This record gives sequence, structure tokens and C-alpha cells, in this order.
Amino acid sequence: MTRMVEDIERVSVGLGERAYDILIGPGLLAGVGEAAAKLGARAVGVVTDETVAGLHLPTVERSLAGAGLAFDTVRVPAGEASKSFDMLARVVDGLLAARIERGDLVLALGGGVVGDLAGFAAAILRRGVRVLQAPTSLLAQVDSSVGGKTGINSPRGKNLIGAFHQPSLVLADTATLDTLPERELRAGYAEVAKYGLIDDPDFFAWLEANPRAVFCAGPDRIRGIATSCRAKAAVVARDERETGDRALLNLGHTFGHALEADVAYDSARLVHGEGVAIGMAMAFRFSAALGLCPEEDAARVERHLSAVGLPIRVSAIPGPIGGAEALFAHMQQDKKVSRGRLTFILARGVGKSFVARDVDPARALDFLRRELAPAA
Amino acid sequence: MTRMVEDIERVSVGLGERAYDILIGPGLLAGVGEAAAKLGARAVGVVTDETVAGLHLPTVERSLAGAGLAFDTVRVPAGEASKSFDMLARVVDGLLAARIERGDLVLALGGGVVGDLAGFAAAILRRGVRVLQAPTSLLAQVDSSVGGKTGINSPRGKNLIGAFHQPSLVLADTATLDTLPERELRAGYAEVAKYGLIDDPDFFAWLEANPRAVFCAGPDRIRGIATSCRAKAAVVARDERETGDRALLNLGHTFGHALEADVAYDSARLVHGEGVAIGMAMAFRFSAALGLCPEEDAARVERHLSAVGLPIRVSAIPGPIGGAEALFAHMQQDKKVSRGRLTFILARGVGKSFVARDVDPARALDFLRRELAPAA
Ligand SMILES: NC(=O)c1ccc[n+]([C@@H]2O[C@H](COP(=O)([O-])OP(=O)(O)OC[C@H]3O[C@@H](n4cnc5c(N)ncnc54)[C@H](O)[C@@H]3O)[C@@H](O)[C@H]2O)c1
Ligand SMILES: NC(=O)c1ccc[n+]([C@@H]2O[C@H](COP(=O)([O-])OP(=O)(O)OC[C@H]3O[C@@H](n4cnc5c(N)ncnc54)[C@H](O)[C@@H]3O)[C@@H](O)[C@H]2O)c1
Repeated sequence: MTRMVEDIERVSVGLGERAYDILIGPGLLAGVGEAAAKLGARAVGVVTDETVAGLHLPTVERSLAGAGLAFDTVRVPAGEASKSFDMLARVVDGLLAARIERGDLVLALGGGVVGDLAGFAAAILRRGVRVLQAPTSLLAQVDSSVGGKTGINSPRGKNLIGAFHQPSLVLADTATLDTLPERELRAGYAEVAKYGLIDDPDFFAWLEANPRAVFCAGPDRIRGIATSCRAKAAVVARDERETGDRALLNLGHTFGHALEADVAYDSARLVHGEGVAIGMAMAFRFSAALGLCPEEDAARVERHLSAVGLPIRVSAIPGPIGGAEALFAHMQQDKKVSRGRLTFILARGVGKSFVARDVDPARALDFLRRELAPAA
Repeated sequence: MTRMVEDIERVSVGLGERAYDILIGPGLLAGVGEAAAKLGARAVGVVTDETVAGLHLPTVERSLAGAGLAFDTVRVPAGEASKSFDMLARVVDGLLAARIERGDLVLALGGGVVGDLAGFAAAILRRGVRVLQAPTSLLAQVDSSVGGKTGINSPRGKNLIGAFHQPSLVLADTATLDTLPERELRAGYAEVAKYGLIDDPDFFAWLEANPRAVFCAGPDRIRGIATSCRAKAAVVARDERETGDRALLNLGHTFGHALEADVAYDSARLVHGEGVAIGMAMAFRFSAALGLCPEEDAARVERHLSAVGLPIRVSAIPGPIGGAEALFAHMQQDKKVSRGRLTFILARGVGKSFVARDVDPARALDFLRRELAPAA
């Protein structure tokens, strides 16, 4: 292999007997066969989507064959709609047909949709088969491939069905980002910015100063991705099952998920990261409205997200959006609802987010009404 | 409540932070609301089948209402066919519609089918909601409700899809067995006898001396069920995820599952426990044929199972059965297949079972041919 060792960053997720590494750098997919063999797999069930298959599957298949591994590939249509019960049944059936056994490996090759779907399929196949995450979107590299949350959507809400199933290894080949559409790259960037906004004001300041860092190939991109993974790994190691402050990672997600549900997960109108960007801007504006956070910090968040081309208002979503009540109802079906109470991630400023477990529903509804007013 | 405290046996499953109790005795269902409230649930999603609903749901609903709990019931058709992806999706949707949240409780009221299906639904609902198992069949009381294995079937094989999800409490109301059809009672008895055959020759001798003990209400029945639960709990505590000797619990199941698959899970022809009975007799005959076990022990197993009315030969199954090759192929799709090698549970005698990891496929096929020969 010609890749240079100094290009590769390693982040460790400290989860005791479920600990694993995240490798980040260009060209890693060419070594996936070797990595799978090292994990002791005999056969590999690759799960990918049609788009990613056309771009990166040949590299993976060459590598698996080169390592002497048996493999079979299950392809699903690209897009959020594949996170369904029907597709889950098809993926599981494909893995059974490929005779993937308990000591073998499922390889999730793609963005967050494939990672969540394949990870969940691996979790329930024969009551648990290991999964190697090979994320190919920025969002998947900095967020969804790390931490073990897997799952599918219900018509009643996003990610309502799933399992915790940590990967055995994450290979984030940053060269795959070169084929990722600009809009998807931007969407993933929302999660990168999120880590700064949660508790790392220095990282946010670095991003403000280098708005193209993560968008262009090179060491700054790897640094931005590795910093993100490190932040996520630290939270996950502290709180694997989200009983406590792992909820911080949902900054921007309570509003974002409600918006995604409202457009019925139509990615032509809104992709996940765009929902998160709008949601983070809303969380800061809501925090400011509640008197918790300086207006200037909310404005700073809006400025940086806008600078990289991300939406910050509901009005940026093309087409009609439900009223405040409709969004509010979506939020109440959220997994994070506890005993009927709404949990929000709010902020006292950039890098000072916190979990607010008992937000007054009337204030939330009022805030939503103002956000959705034509003037806004 | 009028039940007498001395009637209730308690078995603890020692699994650290996942430890739980099994309560065994008549009338426990009348206290299920109290028990659910003690676990801190606010709402309870009951999952049951049509048959059990008609007999025991009113008791449960009265008890839940009496304890001031919100509840909703999802009913599935009785029978193995309900362990499918479609029914899983319906149960999960019903639980979401009932707004069962992370702190709430799923209540599995029924036999092993409901326990496996509802337990799996609980495992994947919002990535994990607690489940209270209220087993109403003998098989479920002595086996399936204990140990945390949950799941559904695939057209490619039984229980190939599922999760480990320990219950928070098991309430085995032995009075429910009074409505269980005799055939189902006998089928559950196969698992009771199994615990004796695995490693408790004294228990097996006691069963031989008291062949009606578990079939009739009274302290002997409770003793037989509690001894079975204790045996299962001990194995589960030693090996929660079946990486080692939990496999012993599969005595009779490798052959049994192949037979169930062969009749396409048609319970008119074969129910699970009958398959296990035939499978255990086969395991002892195979052990004897391999020179591992005295012929007399195999004959003793046959005698006792026959004495209680259980089948011991493939020929007892009504209708045509596939050939040796077909059964062998089913066995190779078993979850317990490891690297293509067949694992059998064999025995050196009554109460002396062991895991045989590398059985010669030719000898197994040969044995199957003899078992299926018209003369046999
Ligand atoms: N599990 C978690 O912890 C977690 C965290 C955040 C988000 N998520 C989930 O992740 C999903 C969103 O992930 P996503 O944004 O990656 O979506 P995605 O998987 O749909 O990928 C976005 C699009 O980019 C394409 N694509 C991916 N990699 C490519 C590449 N290298 N070149 C060209 N095209 C490529 C895909 O085919 C798809 O069309 C959502 O379902 C969300 O719920 C999960
Ligand atoms: N999870 C495990 O560890 C484990 C272990 C062993 C078996 N199993 C599974 O358990 C299932 C078999 O369990 P089962 O034999 O209880 O089957 P079942 O749930 O289908 O029950 C058998 C029949 O008895 C009826 N029934 C149940 N309780 C009754 C009552 N009190 N009165 C009248 N009728 C009643 C049911 O409606 C059904 O028709 C299989 O799917 C098997 O794979 C699981």
C-alpha cells in the first residue's frame, strides 16, 4: 500500500471489553480486507447503498478478496427511506443467505443510513454478529459510525426502533469524501460544528477561523474529523447507554428530528445535517429567549453555520412546513421524552451546552410559534 | 389477596446489574399490577395471544388498573407463526402507539411465542425497554421466560433473528397451567426432563418416580418448576451469552429444530417440546451409537418420555418427513454452527451431557439415515 502512516489518526473508544479503535485517513478502504482478517472473520457480509456501491465497492471487494475472505454484498437503495422494517428484513435475509455466522463480520459501507441499518441488522442477526463500520459520508465519519447506536425509523418517528451495538472497528477513509456531494459534506459539517458548540469553544473558534478546513482534503480535514471523533468517543465512554450526559450529543436534534418528520424524511427538502443545523440555531435562539444565553452567542452560531452554507431557519426548507403544534407533537414522540416531559439541549453560550430536563411546554410552544411566524 | 405466601417459590438469576427474580406459584397474576408499579413503570404495554387473552387477560387488566397504571394491549394470533418480522413490526408499532417510554414496561403474557416476540420487541423499542415475563405455558415457565433469549424465526430457520434481553422480573403463575391443553403441558414437560438429563440425575430419578408431579396442581408441581428454573438460572448466570456451556441447554434441540423446520413449524404436526423430546431421545441414541453412553441410559430416557406420553421417534410425527439429507441441511443452518462445524449436545449417561464441538458429519448423516429408515 502506498498510503503514508503519518496520515492516519487513531482514536480509541474506551468501553472496556467493547473497546475499539477509529482509524481516520485517506486510502484506508484498501486495507479493509486485512483489517477484517485480523478480527478473525472468515466471511464478510457487506451492506452498502447503490450510490456508494458504484463508487467504492470495487476497492472493498478487491481488498476482501486479497485477504482471502469469503464475502457477499447486500445493496439497498440510497436514502433515509431504507431505514425501514422492510429493508431490515431484506438485509437480515441477505446476511443469512450469505451464511454469515457468529464469528464473522458485517461490513457497513456507506453513510449514516447504511451504518444504522447494517449495524442494527448485525445486532439482531443470530442475536449479535460483529460489525465493522466503514463510513463514507462526513456525517457518518464524525458521528453515526461511532458510539454503537443503530436502528431504523418508524412511521411514528425517527430511530424509534434499534439497538446499542458497538462496532469492532471504524475505518474512516477520508478519501471517500472526495466523491461526496457538496450538500452532504455541508450536512455532515453541522455535526462537526456541534462538538465545538457542546463543550469545546476552542475547536469552534478554530472552525470559525478555518471554515474550509474540513471541506478540503488534507491534514486539517483529518484533524477536524479526529477531534470530532474524540469528542464523541469521550461522551460515549462516559455514558454508553444515554442515561446521562450522552444526551448532549443531541444538541440541535430535538428540533431537527421534528423538522425531518414534518417533511416525511424527504431528503430533497431536508437532509439530517441540515435539520441539525437549523435545530442548533434554534436551540441557541431558544436559550437566548429563555435568558440563558447571550444573544451574541446565538448570533455567532448563526454566522458560522451560514458562512459554510448551512440553513439556520425553518423558512430555508423548501415547501410547506406544519404549524408549531404539529412540530411540537413530533417532539413529544421523541425517544428522549421521559414521563411525558420534554428534554432539550440548551446552552449558556458557545461550548456551554447542558441537558434541560424540564422545559415548560408552554414556552417551547410559544418559541415555535415565533420561529414559524411569516416574519421570522 | 388470598394466596398463601408459603406457596410461592423464589429463584434468583444472578446477573449483576441485570439480576432478577423468578416467582413461582398459584395466583401471581393477580399481583402483576403491584409488581409493575414497584418496578417504577408508569405505563404497561401488554403483549399476549388471542387464546391467552381470552383466559387470563381480565385478571391482568384488573390488577394493572388496580395499581393505577396506564396500559394498552397488543394481541397476536396464537402459534409459532407469530414469531415473524411482520408480527414484530405490528407489536412494536402497537407499543409505540401506546406511548410506552424508556422507563415503562412491556408485559409478555403467554407462552414462549409471546415471550420471545414481546421480549424482542421490548429489546428494540427505543433501543431497549424493560420487560416483565408472565409465562402461562409450562414450557415458558421452566425455560423460555428465563435467560433473556428473545427473537423471531426466519424462513431460513428458527430463532435466527433476535436479541439478548433479560427480563426485569418473571411471574410464573402456576394456576394458569390449569387451562393449558394437555398436549402443551406434555410438551413443556420435555424441558423439565431435560434439566435432569443435562446434569441432575437425582432430579431425573425423582421425575421417574413421580411422573405426574408436574402435571397436577400442588407443591410437587411448584417444586418441579422451581428446580427447572434454578437449573436454567445457574447456567445463564455462568454463561449469559452462550459462548460456552449454556449450549448444554440445547440438549435435544439440534435434532428438534431440524424437525420443526422440516414440518414448516406446523404445530398441528409437531410442537416445540415434542421436537425436543424426540431430539433428546435421538441425542441419547446417537451417543449410544457413538459408544459414548450405555444403551441402558438411552432406553431409560425413552421409557420415561414415553411414560408421560411424549414422542421419542421421528415416525411419531404425522405426515411425511424429509430425508436424512434434508434434516442435515436444516441442522447446518443452526445458529450454533461454528465455522461450518456441527455442534451436538451428547451424553455419557443420564445427567452427564456435554458439548461435542466437532462431530464427524458422516457419522451424523449415517445416524439420521438409520433413524429415518422405515424399520426404525
Ligand atoms: N447512529 C448514530 O449515532 C447516528 C448519528 C447521527 C445520524 N445518524 C443517522 O445517519 C443518517 C444520515 O447519515 P448520512 O447523512 O450519511 O446519510 P446517507 O447515508 O443517506 O448518505 C447521504 C447520501 O450520500 C451518499 N453517499 C455516502 N457516501 C458517499 C460518498 N463517499 N460518495 C458519494 N455519495 C456518498 C449516500 O448514498 C446518500 O445518498 C440518518 O439516518 C441519521 O438518523 C445516526
Ligand atoms: N427464549 C428461550 O430461551 C426459549 C426457550 C425454549 C423455547 N422457546 C420458544 O418458545 C416457543 C414455544 O413456547 P410454547 O410451547 O409456550 O408455545 P406457545 O406460546 O405457542 O403456547 C402454546 C399454545 O398454548 C397456548 N397457551 C399458552 N398458555 C396457555 C394457558 N395458560 N391456557 C391455555 N392455553 C395457553 C398458546 O395460545 C398456544 O396456542 C417456541 O417458539 C420456542 O422457540 C424459547
